[in-house]
Amino acid sequence: MNTPLRNDTFIRALRRQPTPHTPIWIMRQAGRYLPEYNATRARAGSFLDLCKSPDYATEVTLQPLDRFALDAAILFSDILTIPDAMGLGLYFAEGEGPRFEHPLRDEQSILALKAPDPYATLRYVTDAVSQIRKALDGRVPLIGFSGSPFTLACYMIEGQGGTEFERVKTMLYSRPDLLHRVLEVNAVAVTAYLNAQIESGAQAVMLFDTWGGALAEAAYREFSLAYLQRIVAGLVRVHDGESVPVIVFTKGGGVWLEHIAAIGCDAVGLDWTVDIGSARARIGDRVALQGNLDPSVLFSPPEVIRREAARVLSSFGGGSGHVFNLGHGISRFTPPEHVAVLVDAVHEFSRAGR
Amino acid sequence: MNTPLRNDTFIRALRRQPTPHTPIWIMRQAGRYLPEYNATRARAGSFLDLCKSPDYATEVTLQPLDRFALDAAILFSDILTIPDAMGLGLYFAEGEGPRFEHPLRDEQSILALKAPDPYATLRYVTDAVSQIRKALDGRVPLIGFSGSPFTLACYMIEGQGGTEFERVKTMLYSRPDLLHRVLEVNAVAVTAYLNAQIESGAQAVMLFDTWGGALAEAAYREFSLAYLQRIVAGLVRVHDGESVPVIVFTKGGGVWLEHIAAIGCDAVGLDWTVDIGSARARIGDRVALQGNLDPSVLFSPPEVIRREAARVLSSFGGGSGHVFNLGHGISRFTPPEHVAVLVDAVHEFSRAGR
Repeated sequence: MNTPLRNDTFIRALRRQPTPHTPIWIMRQAGRYLPEYNATRARAGSFLDLCKSPDYATEVTLQPLDRFALDAAILFSDILTIPDAMGLGLYFAEGEGPRFEHPLRDEQSILALKAPDPYATLRYVTDAVSQIRKALDGRVPLIGFSGSPFTLACYMIEGQGGTEFERVKTMLYSRPDLLHRVLEVNAVAVTAYLNAQIESGAQAVMLFDTWGGALAEAAYREFSLAYLQRIVAGLVRVHDGESVPVIVFTKGGGVWLEHIAAIGCDAVGLDWTVDIGSARARIGDRVALQGNLDPSVLFSPPEVIRREAARVLSSFGGGSGHVFNLGHGISRFTPPEHVAVLVDAVHEFSRAGR
Repeated sequence: MNTPLRNDTFIRALRRQPTPHTPIWIMRQAGRYLPEYNATRARAGSFLDLCKSPDYATEVTLQPLDRFALDAAILFSDILTIPDAMGLGLYFAEGEGPRFEHPLRDEQSILALKAPDPYATLRYVTDAVSQIRKALDGRVPLIGFSGSPFTLACYMIEGQGGTEFERVKTMLYSRPDLLHRVLEVNAVAVTAYLNAQIESGAQAVMLFDTWGGALAEAAYREFSLAYLQRIVAGLVRVHDGESVPVIVFTKGGGVWLEHIAAIGCDAVGLDWTVDIGSARARIGDRVALQGNLDPSVLFSPPEVIRREAARVLSSFGGGSGHVFNLGHGISRFTPPEHVAVLVDAVHEFSRAGR
């Protein structure tokens, strides 16, 4: 199982060790901007069919690696597999994003909530991880991931994305005990889920806190960060003799970086609104940083993409501890050839800068 | 014209002078959560008819003051009056928010853009300001306002709100010269517009940069903050022998507070994601702070509203330089009686704390 990594720049950067170039991967790198992804998805049927088939998940996870010189692969999956396994009935209304058939709308359904066994109802994910790891054969490391307890709770309580969080925030302020109950179950579930991914072959894991940034600071710390901390403390940190780095990303969390860096993670993901040089000055002595180009830069011509990539690298300021990425998932409208320009520019400039 | 103010707590707090209580007003305090507003709007016809009639604008501006012990009034108007006066054809699609008939989609329309004379095409606004000031008769101060050049440009280029800013960001990165041209015209227009409001009786002004927070830091400073600074430098700062304080609010700008506080404004508006105590430690020696309760707290029962109001006050930490507000506009689904609870709690707690 333990094929040595031929490219370990991503893992080394997360450990803040020197690397010959700045590694880069891209959030949602296997996705709708790639024609080959759309072709596989059409063959698979629905998006959920794609997620739930380890064969298809392996195929699309590897697609961007064949096109671009990326330094990491990330498990192809959905952020909402856990609530689906809890029985909430995930489905995708065409053109409307994820929804749940049975959102948490009463106390009874919240009290009945149970963390799923990742090796049972989520077996398709651990199987996909094993299969992808095998298919990668040491080419680059494989990242596992999960949504954060709070982000999952937003979807579970609202029933869908794209809201102003009226329901979840009303519960947060009026019935904090109920929200804490959901978050506790989610934290147990996420910990077991990520540990199962690690045991199945994930070489690093990332927690996506997509909606934590919608909270006031005190609420963020109590209802999102505290649970992220609990998960980080419960993760398997060494597997097969290798340390497994943990990345925590709260979109819109730029003002709270010091708090995020203090929860025991190895790296902090940055959205594009934060200057990465300022972020490094604030927390770079404790964690590696991942990010943070504005995804919309990829709509620009190649010379602009190269200039803006150089700007992020130069703001970080050289040395170790930087994993290049976008500040959010890549847009489906991105021309794939622009991704090649970005990946190559990051490698070229960072090699020259060492 | 110069009736002395019977309640000048708002103006004094902006000047960081002592006040007997922390003044409070609420963004979008005249609006759809109030049945009397909806009644007036029904009489007026459309939302734009309401905005464009000084009589109706005066009526709805004063409505929340009759219900709640608010310490300031804010001109009832729309954020998009300037681009409408530029000929872009503002309209409201039912249930869809503002749109423009003629968004800026080519170089020619951008080069043809001209700043409107506020006393001509925007006369309905300056007339409303004079009339409201007269109707207030010294009860509380009147705030004038405008959208920021960048925020106006977002609507003008996208043609509507609620987008991911693909068009405006593509222009920003690919044709920055064109975007700068729009922003220059907008900055001239906003400066003239706010000065006309001041000359007509506005006793403080606020710049709403609703979308600046969607930018990367370097882009924010170049394409939003630089123009805010230019406007602040061009404003009439003393009128009728009184200083006219300027508040600048960039939603999502919490990481950039030091930069915002440095542009010459008197106060910085905070959204709810920033802890106001941390913000005060960062910039409270230079500016007053306005904010920053999460608007969704107002969906909670009275005791929670009181507790969360106390939390903001206590985080600020007493003393002068605080104007209480929400961190964003009030939701149309807010029960009006909850606003009374908030206003009274802020007054009660802050009086007790002095």
